[in-house]
Amino acid sequence: MLKVGVIGVGTVGTSVVKILVDNKEMITARAGREVIVTSGVVKNLNKDRGLDIKLSDDPYDIVNDPEIDVVVELMGGVEEPFKVVKAALQNGKAVVTANKALLAYHRYELQDIAKDLPFEYEASVAGGIPIINALRDGLSANHIESIVGIMNGTCNYMMTKMTDEGVAYDAILKESQELGYAEADPSFDVGGFDAAHKLLILASIAYGIDAKPEDILIEGIDKVTQDDIAFAKEFGYAIKLLAIAKRDGDEVELRVHAALISKDEMIAKIDGVMNGVSVIGDKVGETLYYGPGAGGDATASAVVANIIDIARAGKSSPMLGFDKPLENGLTLKDKDTIHSKYYLRFSVQDKPGVLAEITKLFGEHNISIETILQRPSATDNVNLLLSTHTAVEGDIQNVITISEQLDFVVEKPVLIRIV
Amino acid sequence: MLKVGVIGVGTVGTSVVKILVDNKEMITARAGREVIVTSGVVKNLNKDRGLDIKLSDDPYDIVNDPEIDVVVELMGGVEEPFKVVKAALQNGKAVVTANKALLAYHRYELQDIAKDLPFEYEASVAGGIPIINALRDGLSANHIESIVGIMNGTCNYMMTKMTDEGVAYDAILKESQELGYAEADPSFDVGGFDAAHKLLILASIAYGIDAKPEDILIEGIDKVTQDDIAFAKEFGYAIKLLAIAKRDGDEVELRVHAALISKDEMIAKIDGVMNGVSVIGDKVGETLYYGPGAGGDATASAVVANIIDIARAGKSSPMLGFDKPLENGLTLKDKDTIHSKYYLRFSVQDKPGVLAEITKLFGEHNISIETILQRPSATDNVNLLLSTHTAVEGDIQNVITISEQLDFVVEKPVLIRIV
Repeated sequence: MLKVGVIGVGTVGTSVVKILVDNKEMITARAGREVIVTSGVVKNLNKDRGLDIKLSDDPYDIVNDPEIDVVVELMGGVEEPFKVVKAALQNGKAVVTANKALLAYHRYELQDIAKDLPFEYEASVAGGIPIINALRDGLSANHIESIVGIMNGTCNYMMTKMTDEGVAYDAILKESQELGYAEADPSFDVGGFDAAHKLLILASIAYGIDAKPEDILIEGIDKVTQDDIAFAKEFGYAIKLLAIAKRDGDEVELRVHAALISKDEMIAKIDGVMNGVSVIGDKVGETLYYGPGAGGDATASAVVANIIDIARAGKSSPMLGFDKPLENGLTLKDKDTIHSKYYLRFSVQDKPGVLAEITKLFGEHNISIETILQRPSATDNVNLLLSTHTAVEGDIQNVITISEQLDFVVEKPVLIRIV
Repeated sequence: MLKVGVIGVGTVGTSVVKILVDNKEMITARAGREVIVTSGVVKNLNKDRGLDIKLSDDPYDIVNDPEIDVVVELMGGVEEPFKVVKAALQNGKAVVTANKALLAYHRYELQDIAKDLPFEYEASVAGGIPIINALRDGLSANHIESIVGIMNGTCNYMMTKMTDEGVAYDAILKESQELGYAEADPSFDVGGFDAAHKLLILASIAYGIDAKPEDILIEGIDKVTQDDIAFAKEFGYAIKLLAIAKRDGDEVELRVHAALISKDEMIAKIDGVMNGVSVIGDKVGETLYYGPGAGGDATASAVVANIIDIARAGKSSPMLGFDKPLENGLTLKDKDTIHSKYYLRFSVQDKPGVLAEITKLFGEHNISIETILQRPSATDNVNLLLSTHTAVEGDIQNVITISEQLDFVVEKPVLIRIV
């Protein structure tokens, strides 16, 4: 059994505890052993979190607990968690953190202290997207040419709203604060500092470069107006807060700023609170990773993935994720019982009564038609194009088989499912 | 040193050999030891491949070579590679394969035979995208609710062309064959079988389900016409060949077919030969992985990543990818030397000569203007919106500093970089 202590049981910490309970059976199958959170550290012991773990208000109760194998650091800040995490490593514990600021300042010191102890931090960049995993392992064969990331959901939400709805910066900032997407003091997000912390972490993995936030170009989105958005639209650009790492000979360019980027780029298509990171490798070309950059469960998904990895204790995951086809597990659904919406194209003779017969046939098989278009075809016949509400595959196949026999149906109807 | 034998030195195999040479220093740093391809197996020994490795035409020369640590299987087919790979595992060798057909039929048998020997296959699904890595490790905390993939570049290229250019199916198939995107016998791609093999692999990792191609719904794109594309456009859909795995209670739905999908979905935005896989986890929500699904270097990138992973011999990769900031490595580029295109907004008094003075200032600093727009602003002043050709950051900052002193410049000019 792997025992975990969580320092900082807020939104993400609570999700970590709950995921390990909710998905216990599957996580045990993937990890090769049971994983449980035994204790947590909170600031206010009087608040009921509805969790069945031992709570303390002192991080060192976990750091010094000989029973604890893995310390999860979710307390925030820089110097205080640095001390706590150092002490945990010195006590021989594995560490998982989601703390990008800690890593922006102390990642190489931590790597030195950790030595062979696992120190994982997938959740620190782009929340639920396994971008650390991809960059460090999935793309390990490549020299990285560039990384371009949308890694701050607050800024991306604001830029999307300003673009789609023509809202002024101040109005959308206020709305974002009311929705909880932006802090009361939003400067850490809109000033580009949050994205810069994440960029420095990715740049280390890609380039092995040790830079600090104060070394690099960091600007925010707070100067962007509707005038700029109108210009961008006119010339086919979107405006995004981008974090960019780019190799140029023996130098690495690191910068965070608002940017005009062609609407045709995949990264420009990432809207709202979502994050995305485009990575160009010298061999693979461009790959892109998209997903939720924040939120309790999404961030905790990455934290728990790190814990599972540690639970395997250096063994790779089983080839197919599980040791064998799941016992008592899932079965393959019969094709005929699949539910879908459908689009169908009938080529029919252009004569009275045809439409009525076709639609009657659908009704008899409990299929409700959503839209229907009659279009001239290249031949003497006409095309009936129709889409259905959700129906059962077997019923649709019956309708097709029967309709093929009708004398006015010229060729086998074509079906495309609507997803 | 880790010694690798490559069975099947075609396009991908040649790229594997070359990547291990081209990126040798970095790969050694990431893997913790040197990795070299010592020998290869080809069908025709007379063809010169320009590679400095020992060649044979018998797979068992590699399988039975006591010097070889890792067998890379790139020979294609199902039963023959199954025999070869089994023999390699029985000889205690690690195996890396890109062979989706082999895995579609024999993955659970191979997992049983491999036991604790590494058996990796990242390249078998979606080429250069590390989707196996993401699904098996990055998302391991999640129950997977669905996987929706565009995993056949040939089909996606054809659908994109039919949509964007109104080309008929037969014409675009012919063009794809001429470009080398489609085989002379295209049925494996356009019939959906290639995507189905990949889907079965992902479904095993997500659900632990053992299904074979003949068990599931597989249809292709060969019935899609311009009539269908017109219908799709009219109702806000794209048409894509999708591979879908979806959990429904105790059942798993597996299917490959052409599908109408809302243009607003990220997966619908993946065009041309590119691949993409959208995964919904119960905790993380949607994450999506995008990149090249084929091509020698892209596929080899995934094969080599697997080899590097094996070279680490069960040790995780170093926390930051490399053990320390790269010695003799890359340095941070000075902010002022960054090259970019720029957009600038000047708020100026509306009087004669202003435009001339501003443009003169740019010329004096070697900055070439690409476009310029003069727009009324909300105040008594006007906005000059302009974009530049590529310029140097320091020059742009000088222009801004000087222009701020000009009496007709009303407020500090705003700069947004164009990426």
